[in-house]
Amino acid sequence: MLFTPLIERKRDGGVLTPEEWHSVIESYLRDEIPDYQMAAMLMAICWRGLDPLELAALTQAMLQSGERLGPGSLPRVDKHSTGGVGDKVSLVLAPLVASCGVPVPMMSGRGLGHTGGTTDKMESIPGLQTALTLDQVKGQLDGIGIAMFGQTESMAPADRRLYALRDVTGTVPSIPLIAASIMSKKLAEGLAGLVLDVKCGSGAFMTEPAQAVDLARTMVELGEASGCRTAAFVTAMDRPLGRAIGNALELEEALLALQGKGPEDLMTVTRALATEMLLVAGRGPDRMALARVVDEALASGKALAKFRELVGAQGGNPAIVDDPGALPQAAVVELYEAPCAGVIAAVAPRPLGRAVVAMGGGRRQLHDQVDHSVGFVVSGRPGARVLKGEPIASVFARDEEGARLGLAALAEAISFGEPAAQLPLISHRITRSGVEAF
Amino acid sequence: MLFTPLIERKRDGGVLTPEEWHSVIESYLRDEIPDYQMAAMLMAICWRGLDPLELAALTQAMLQSGERLGPGSLPRVDKHSTGGVGDKVSLVLAPLVASCGVPVPMMSGRGLGHTGGTTDKMESIPGLQTALTLDQVKGQLDGIGIAMFGQTESMAPADRRLYALRDVTGTVPSIPLIAASIMSKKLAEGLAGLVLDVKCGSGAFMTEPAQAVDLARTMVELGEASGCRTAAFVTAMDRPLGRAIGNALELEEALLALQGKGPEDLMTVTRALATEMLLVAGRGPDRMALARVVDEALASGKALAKFRELVGAQGGNPAIVDDPGALPQAAVVELYEAPCAGVIAAVAPRPLGRAVVAMGGGRRQLHDQVDHSVGFVVSGRPGARVLKGEPIASVFARDEEGARLGLAALAEAISFGEPAAQLPLISHRITRSGVEAF
Repeated sequence: MLFTPLIERKRDGGVLTPEEWHSVIESYLRDEIPDYQMAAMLMAICWRGLDPLELAALTQAMLQSGERLGPGSLPRVDKHSTGGVGDKVSLVLAPLVASCGVPVPMMSGRGLGHTGGTTDKMESIPGLQTALTLDQVKGQLDGIGIAMFGQTESMAPADRRLYALRDVTGTVPSIPLIAASIMSKKLAEGLAGLVLDVKCGSGAFMTEPAQAVDLARTMVELGEASGCRTAAFVTAMDRPLGRAIGNALELEEALLALQGKGPEDLMTVTRALATEMLLVAGRGPDRMALARVVDEALASGKALAKFRELVGAQGGNPAIVDDPGALPQAAVVELYEAPCAGVIAAVAPRPLGRAVVAMGGGRRQLHDQVDHSVGFVVSGRPGARVLKGEPIASVFARDEEGARLGLAALAEAISFGEPAAQLPLISHRITRSGVEAF
Repeated sequence: MLFTPLIERKRDGGVLTPEEWHSVIESYLRDEIPDYQMAAMLMAICWRGLDPLELAALTQAMLQSGERLGPGSLPRVDKHSTGGVGDKVSLVLAPLVASCGVPVPMMSGRGLGHTGGTTDKMESIPGLQTALTLDQVKGQLDGIGIAMFGQTESMAPADRRLYALRDVTGTVPSIPLIAASIMSKKLAEGLAGLVLDVKCGSGAFMTEPAQAVDLARTMVELGEASGCRTAAFVTAMDRPLGRAIGNALELEEALLALQGKGPEDLMTVTRALATEMLLVAGRGPDRMALARVVDEALASGKALAKFRELVGAQGGNPAIVDDPGALPQAAVVELYEAPCAGVIAAVAPRPLGRAVVAMGGGRRQLHDQVDHSVGFVVSGRPGARVLKGEPIASVFARDEEGARLGLAALAEAISFGEPAAQLPLISHRITRSGVEAF
């Protein structure tokens, strides 16, 4: 195909037809469009955007570039988060919703940049495998109603190639490109419903609420246009979610949350998302009743039992569920004490997320080895009044050098003074009916 | 160097430092920046532009990427046209100005797209070589004060690579990128002065006067910042310039013009540009006096004699100067007759320029062979009243198929009815003092 005229049309603010988008993706995957032309197109999309028809066509083309999970006996739902620091919601949510009888095929990514990835967190569990085939996923869904696995080579390969190119050409932060990337992968799971958690704030990719709402609305529209009931929440990421940051530490906190005993902010977000997942799964229109179903699953131990089943099915050691001490333990643990008396003004997520990577708990490059034991537990929350020398956080490191990095990151992240205005924990709910304050 | 953060900065509307631009060009030429990253940067420049400091740095970096013509005994001047249909001004202007005692090192390009190239037109002359080395150019300037040659491999190689990339990534029409490309090549000639002919109208790359003035102002500023006295004219390209279109046909018309007998529009533009070239060469401040010097060079035969000298020096057959019949002749010549009685409303340049390419007189790809004989002579001018069946143009083709293409192009290009408003032949003069109506 002649691709330059299409780049020129997008550059000048025009639109491509659905047929043209399908042809672009097919040609790119056949190496008939070189990366340098695609890079120019991606930057033109950052500039001019995509209209809803174009976005739907691009997403469908990316989806159709690979294999999909065939239909199951029950309608499936999933959840996607745009990524934050300390965001272990998926680890709680997937078994919780599955334990309510709704199958959850949760495909997720690895940590990249300053945010962690659910796949890495699951791999904290000794022996646990996340590299499942689609047949294995399907079998597990039919058997125990849950699978937590990494993006396979065969699902949405166009997204894999485009994402790698975007990463090195400055074309990541485009709302339509982000939406197409997320939705092409999620729709490949053959979902009846999808709930999106769009993180907003200094620790998220979307720093402004207006951007976050825009991305949420774009993805809800896209999901609904593809026949998948889709809802989204905008949630706060101007501070870490919960107290733990780092793979094994977050898993340990998730085990508490699965018993209903996690930190309040984590429980609030988890309950809201779980209720919404039951709603989009078609489990009835009464939110209050569905919220009670969720609470009962936590209180009864059903959610935790489902997690134990999941761990066993994927080759992990189920003993960790009752004995988190069997998770990888950091060699060096140090307390961080408040350097002065006063009120904690803010806990900035980004320096902590970056520090986890620097301490060996994340990736600088795709094939880096991850040390699952490292990270932070931050007990001091914004607004808390503390005494000088009071322990407000702990660093978990593999050596003294790592501990030093971690303490420096805490000193950078935790500020004192007048507490800054915080974003509401859940600020918006977005459905096909529109945007509402939550 | 880490290039992605620089792409991101430009994407977000920021600026790069002069040192960063130099480093970008050096790294690109060392293949340390891949084409896909450069393509994204080029599209970001189309979007966000370059500020004057950035543009000057990028141009200097491109200029310094290659060899330059060392200084000569007399201050040199040159002219550049942004390209049009029937634009044979360079063929007249270079020998005309050289015959007034000002050396002209005219490096020019080949035809690309619907516009012709001076190098191709010169090569209509049997035996004439345009692939000169810089030493040959220097020797010819010292000897006869004129050289007309193609862009060498060694001058501004960064421009050559960037232009090839822009051509296939939809990043050609950016005013700063166009300005940097033109000026990096022209400044490599070691000029004291430069005159720019910015074509405007449906047959030019700049279709709107405001764009053309903007490009002219950008290039004048850039030239002056590099110590080269620079002036620009915006001239009409909503109709062909002169009557002839096609390589040998334009050369023949240029020979008439060198004797002062060319079509009026061609003579007007040529005289204005020649006078300005003497001005920027420092040949005195009195435009009227300089215009008389130009007229005298035409009337006395000095300009034509200089052209004869040039042809001989570059290996061409000087006999063509007195006998244009020695130029390549088209096998098929057909008259085009007015299909109705009335007034010629417009002669659209673009269909005619495209037809020359289709008839074999231009290039679709860089290494295509050119048939110098083909083209048009259009005697019917916009505003002329004609009778039905009156011959208003001729097609010169290599076969019947070519003639058929040519006649169809004339039917498309020449419209009848109320004459449309024409652009002024010369609308603006732009110097370091500002923009003035001409």
